[in-house]
Amino acid sequence: MREIGLADVDDIARGAGILGTGGGGDPYLGKLLAETAITRHGPITVVTIDEVAPDAVVIPVAMLGAPTVCQEKLPNGTEALTALRALEAATGTEATHLVPIEIGGMNSLVPLALAAETGLPIVDGDAMGRAFPEAQMTSFAIHDLPMYPLTLADVRDNAVIVARAQSWKWMERLSRTACVAVGSIAGTCKAPRTGKEVKECGILYTTTKAIRLGQAVQAARREHRDPVQAVIDAERGLRLFTGKVQDVARRATEGFLRGTALLEGLDADRGHAFRLAFQNEFAVGWLDGVVRVTTPDLICVLDTVSGDAVGTETLRYGQRVTVVALPAAPVLLTPKGLEHVGPRAFGYDLDFRSVFA
Amino acid sequence: MREIGLADVDDIARGAGILGTGGGGDPYLGKLLAETAITRHGPITVVTIDEVAPDAVVIPVAMLGAPTVCQEKLPNGTEALTALRALEAATGTEATHLVPIEIGGMNSLVPLALAAETGLPIVDGDAMGRAFPEAQMTSFAIHDLPMYPLTLADVRDNAVIVARAQSWKWMERLSRTACVAVGSIAGTCKAPRTGKEVKECGILYTTTKAIRLGQAVQAARREHRDPVQAVIDAERGLRLFTGKVQDVARRATEGFLRGTALLEGLDADRGHAFRLAFQNEFAVGWLDGVVRVTTPDLICVLDTVSGDAVGTETLRYGQRVTVVALPAAPVLLTPKGLEHVGPRAFGYDLDFRSVFA
Repeated sequence: MREIGLADVDDIARGAGILGTGGGGDPYLGKLLAETAITRHGPITVVTIDEVAPDAVVIPVAMLGAPTVCQEKLPNGTEALTALRALEAATGTEATHLVPIEIGGMNSLVPLALAAETGLPIVDGDAMGRAFPEAQMTSFAIHDLPMYPLTLADVRDNAVIVARAQSWKWMERLSRTACVAVGSIAGTCKAPRTGKEVKECGILYTTTKAIRLGQAVQAARREHRDPVQAVIDAERGLRLFTGKVQDVARRATEGFLRGTALLEGLDADRGHAFRLAFQNEFAVGWLDGVVRVTTPDLICVLDTVSGDAVGTETLRYGQRVTVVALPAAPVLLTPKGLEHVGPRAFGYDLDFRSVFA
Repeated sequence: MREIGLADVDDIARGAGILGTGGGGDPYLGKLLAETAITRHGPITVVTIDEVAPDAVVIPVAMLGAPTVCQEKLPNGTEALTALRALEAATGTEATHLVPIEIGGMNSLVPLALAAETGLPIVDGDAMGRAFPEAQMTSFAIHDLPMYPLTLADVRDNAVIVARAQSWKWMERLSRTACVAVGSIAGTCKAPRTGKEVKECGILYTTTKAIRLGQAVQAARREHRDPVQAVIDAERGLRLFTGKVQDVARRATEGFLRGTALLEGLDADRGHAFRLAFQNEFAVGWLDGVVRVTTPDLICVLDTVSGDAVGTETLRYGQRVTVVALPAAPVLLTPKGLEHVGPRAFGYDLDFRSVFA
């Protein structure tokens, strides 16, 4: 058990921005939400899974939508609470813990804000070990845990429950269309998990991982070392490309932010080109037209100087960036895992070959 | 209290087809569903509102969607039951009665089929006294009763609950997008009503009205009288136009069937033209380019020879039809009623002037 206070939020935001692989929403917005909630309600209790009873009621929490939308339509922080109360009412249970669905961007901080508001402890872990765009792209789904009920709420007092779904794909479709209907940004609580299920099927210790990663970047800056190298060292990552953003094509469609970015090589990569495709998160990277890296390897685009992550919605012409790959959680690399989150799950007719293989 | 058996279904289907003003779904499909359910489970008990306890739990039932879709994708009869069970589970209550949302087309018969299946009695009445396309177009909405929860289920084991909605318009939008996501046809249960609410805010005795209307048409046929005149006499209606369908423009869009039909005059109307616009149901009729009739007056298109209703999805070139207006329930004609179901509610910049005024 440890406490998370105001001083930690900055580290989490920085670390989760990197683990978000371009998505999960702008961590700066999440930081504001978490700071506001902690200032109002006091620090948050983070527990390890060993401190959670097997029959605990752990509610996975996130914001759902297209990261671009958040740039204009800020979350106000009540969406997730409305979703939580709707889930408790629909299931007749009371939450004992919260857990982030994804430890990426804003979505690592929204559950913290909700934890501060409700006084519920948060489990150190998540269900992706990164960020992914769709409902079936979680370790809970890979383990075939029950997928419903899911609740979704907006800021206007609208709340939708997906009470039953024929498959994870249907769960994704039903929750996504509801999300689009309320403006492509909503708070969501997924099917409640027992402590035992989170222990067996979650991806653990990722909140503290985000803190460590954020601290590593900050330490490197303070000590005038290369923050990008600090990220690579902290996570045993791989530097893939250093360049300048030459072009970004971006569209918010079907509740997602989809597009591509083209990087022009600098320094050792001068004369080469790197192309990135994204659906909220970076999904595939091509070096000079040849596939270099694909999901579920974490494809992180970092500011070359500061080491801060650049989101798919904030990427823009002229930025100096370095593309880094970080290793994915083992469950994502299993055959069942790759069915859910491999390149084919994103519509790319490619076999997954890890850059770490 | 009375029983509805196999012998009554045909009359209800015929009468509800007429009251459906072109929509509510093909009554033939509803007839098959009700006949199957009665054959399997026995006759249905219909009660008058005076036989319903003030604290009874009355669940409004319907199929939601675009009538055209039903022509290719038949309901299988389990959708409404799934929606009912989801509503009972979400609210922790048990239904004591069912009531149709609209006494139009298939939607007068789907609640009967569900009543046979569940053994629940059905209240003689509905919330429209006809058919309308949208959630806020009910007498319950006009009376500002609580609008949620609403449940919606398809044939695949998908079920969505709108647990909260900011307004009736949001309720319509959220339930409609869920309906479109599952293929523009779904079973739905609306917010439970107490017996007292149905008594004060429902439109009563419309199931028996549909039976009487169906019987009137059948009697006229048997006795070689004009069935269209029989409808007019039974409901104090008005003959507006007799002609031949010259053109139909129809599209299934946003979960609705929208379009227009052009009639060429025959007999006394030779040389004149009548145009109809519809959104699931007929909404406005123009005689020679001048508005002749608008919602909420019931605009019924009947086969000139048989007196059977012609649905907006079955209307086609060459049909000989007579356009008849029937009076709407008084609640629809109040200023608040017209806000919900007058021509402006359908996007027409027209004041309502009843053909019966």
